[in-house]
Amino acid sequence: MEKLIALELVRNKKFVQLKKMLQEMNPADISDLVADMSEHDEFGERELTLLFRILPKELAAETFTYMDSDMQIMLINAFSDNELREVIDELYLDDTVDIIEEMPANVVSRILKNTDNETRNQINELLNYPKDSAGSIMTPEFVFLRKDATVAEAFARIRKIGLMKETVYTCYVTENRSLVGVVTVLDMLVAEQEKLIEDIMETNVISVFTHDDKEEVARQLSKYDLAAIPVVDADNRIVGIVTFDDAMDVIQEENTEDFSKMAAMQPIEESYFKTSVFVHAKKRIIWLLVLMLSATITGMITMKFDKQISAVPILVSFMPMLMDTGGNCGSQSATLIIRGMALDEIRIRDFFKVVFKEFRISLICSSVLAAVNGLRIFIQYKNLAIAFVVATSLIFTIIIAKLMGSILPMAAKKCKLDPALMAAPIITTVVDTCSILIYFNIATKVLALV
Amino acid sequence: MEKLIALELVRNKKFVQLKKMLQEMNPADISDLVADMSEHDEFGERELTLLFRILPKELAAETFTYMDSDMQIMLINAFSDNELREVIDELYLDDTVDIIEEMPANVVSRILKNTDNETRNQINELLNYPKDSAGSIMTPEFVFLRKDATVAEAFARIRKIGLMKETVYTCYVTENRSLVGVVTVLDMLVAEQEKLIEDIMETNVISVFTHDDKEEVARQLSKYDLAAIPVVDADNRIVGIVTFDDAMDVIQEENTEDFSKMAAMQPIEESYFKTSVFVHAKKRIIWLLVLMLSATITGMITMKFDKQISAVPILVSFMPMLMDTGGNCGSQSATLIIRGMALDEIRIRDFFKVVFKEFRISLICSSVLAAVNGLRIFIQYKNLAIAFVVATSLIFTIIIAKLMGSILPMAAKKCKLDPALMAAPIITTVVDTCSILIYFNIATKVLALV
Repeated sequence: MEKLIALELVRNKKFVQLKKMLQEMNPADISDLVADMSEHDEFGERELTLLFRILPKELAAETFTYMDSDMQIMLINAFSDNELREVIDELYLDDTVDIIEEMPANVVSRILKNTDNETRNQINELLNYPKDSAGSIMTPEFVFLRKDATVAEAFARIRKIGLMKETVYTCYVTENRSLVGVVTVLDMLVAEQEKLIEDIMETNVISVFTHDDKEEVARQLSKYDLAAIPVVDADNRIVGIVTFDDAMDVIQEENTEDFSKMAAMQPIEESYFKTSVFVHAKKRIIWLLVLMLSATITGMITMKFDKQISAVPILVSFMPMLMDTGGNCGSQSATLIIRGMALDEIRIRDFFKVVFKEFRISLICSSVLAAVNGLRIFIQYKNLAIAFVVATSLIFTIIIAKLMGSILPMAAKKCKLDPALMAAPIITTVVDTCSILIYFNIATKVLALV
Repeated sequence: MEKLIALELVRNKKFVQLKKMLQEMNPADISDLVADMSEHDEFGERELTLLFRILPKELAAETFTYMDSDMQIMLINAFSDNELREVIDELYLDDTVDIIEEMPANVVSRILKNTDNETRNQINELLNYPKDSAGSIMTPEFVFLRKDATVAEAFARIRKIGLMKETVYTCYVTENRSLVGVVTVLDMLVAEQEKLIEDIMETNVISVFTHDDKEEVARQLSKYDLAAIPVVDADNRIVGIVTFDDAMDVIQEENTEDFSKMAAMQPIEESYFKTSVFVHAKKRIIWLLVLMLSATITGMITMKFDKQISAVPILVSFMPMLMDTGGNCGSQSATLIIRGMALDEIRIRDFFKVVFKEFRISLICSSVLAAVNGLRIFIQYKNLAIAFVVATSLIFTIIIAKLMGSILPMAAKKCKLDPALMAAPIITTVVDTCSILIYFNIATKVLALV
């Protein structure tokens, strides 16, 4: 709806009306709208630049941060140096760095050329922090205060610095560049204007180090319900802050990564559609190959029982059910435990508690499933021996599956590997082999085969 | 370490030192510490209550919100009415409601008896919102201002209301109880003190309805990078706000739910350890039964090919590999698409784009896998016909798996079902049947069996 109106306004060059419409909108929505419009042929680079130019400066810059990198590159190429400088001036430094990380080299150098010396140095410093570290996602823009400042002086400073958005509500108190306390705007609002900051500041400061993993940063921020967390260097000097909105993005990224890994894929960096078919295939194929070749082991083991199969061919018909059930049981346990560890609810020291719990759960699950399936087979085939073989195999398979599903992810964590790798696909492959061995061995004994 | 010191202090009744130690700590950490201590026999209900009583009132209340419900119940039972009232007075209303929702009836009635009339009414109102709605997670504690107030008057009001934490930084401007604008403390700080609120407020307000799903609330808050989002009723009257920390919890809960569903489990409400073995088993067993019985269909289909199996028993040995690979390929696609839809990156209107993309990916993956496996089989068994049968079956299986993995989750969404249900386990079962059919049909033709 909005898209059609906007397209109509662009088509008829009604820019005053278009400007009025866009000004009422939120930058995130304008970015969505532009992305929708750009799917139409008539809305190309020229129209995009035009639309962007009629936005007020601040709104334009904010909209820019929400756009995807293709559109950002298109705009940067269309900008004059002056326009580029204006947009960058309005951006938060961490957003600028995020944008730069996605850009081809020629665009990056144009951006850096159009920033002042100090900003350029800050950007370069941020770019140097390791990928996925606290330093790489922090912004160096925050308010710091002296201990001996008064509340009135602190407010004057906030007004003077004039940062945008939520970054000002927690101010950081430093002494010789060292972080000694935090004070919130709310603390200052309710305090007398002559009070000293040191008298109202909180000295028990939660902070993270520049080289901490960004996942850890998000976890701390979420654990302590903070709107921002200070990032300090090895000498406890504050060098930046990470705000809650960035932490939320980190949480979602990490979850997406875990989903990918748990389905036997290497995580993709970009969104689904922005990733090419070739890259998608590459990220999936390695694990598929590994798992396929491991599964052939199960196949070879099956062949050790070819005499049994020839004697009682119906044994084959229960293989898919046994293997699938084993895989499902194992991946249930693995999923809960991987998730529990990601949320810090389950720790390595809980190992025996977890394994024992999964063992008891597997007893309940396996009894019910074995009873149902044994009964079904008996009714359908009127063959008690086969019903017994399948039911017993099911019990052992489920117990082993649940134990594997709990042991493997925790062992991975213990070996400093990502537990998410020990999810459904690997568990299924391992459990398959076990279940086939159990099944045919029990069948051989009970049916007195060979 | 901290735990041992604290236990030692409790043991020796050194409460002054203990108090000093705890006062330096963050409520979330105190709650962790108490949970750790309570694993020791010597730290029982009496010690817990003692420790809680030496905390300053506000810190005690905050610590209380971080505790798990067992410990909360223990404390509430030990509290005098007076103490209970003091703790509840310090709590945010949404936290009180969260606590009440976990408590047995007798504890709830004691809590309600110890709140004043107004609070009791507000609690009852909040309890009445549907589970998982915006209303159920919002807090009715926020600052509202009149349009014609000045900035100075607004600050006076904030000081007077004196709410805790971040809830004050965005104030809501109402007119006849209707939400007409928002103004941030930062806006007010940088404005002249005589300015009217209506001159500096933002009138384009992002809000959610009381009955919106909480997941939608978190998504909006995250999309627009808001620290708090107002919740309005059908008449656009603001009735509460949801803050970023609650939204973060919602995001994590929803992710955990998706992980559970995608591994064929009904989500559990409590943490892993707090859920009993019996409940764990119950949440897992339904899907296991459904999938087990579906997998027997695959088994029965296999039996239609018993003549082929008897003729060429080695055919059985490739079944696990084919079924596993099909399952893995399908769950890769399903996982990415379910996650893409959860993040709003993939929409139903993208259906054909997604299916076509997955089709092309499946062509690449299947060619590579078929080539590798065909070659391996040829080298190992020196049998070109069987190598050809397996490779061709692999190609068709992978293509079908990837198509199923993309079509089923999107179809579920279209039918207003949760796409997360159409994940690895179901896809595996469906693809198993297809792959067995393909495999034995190709084998029959190529090997001229029957």
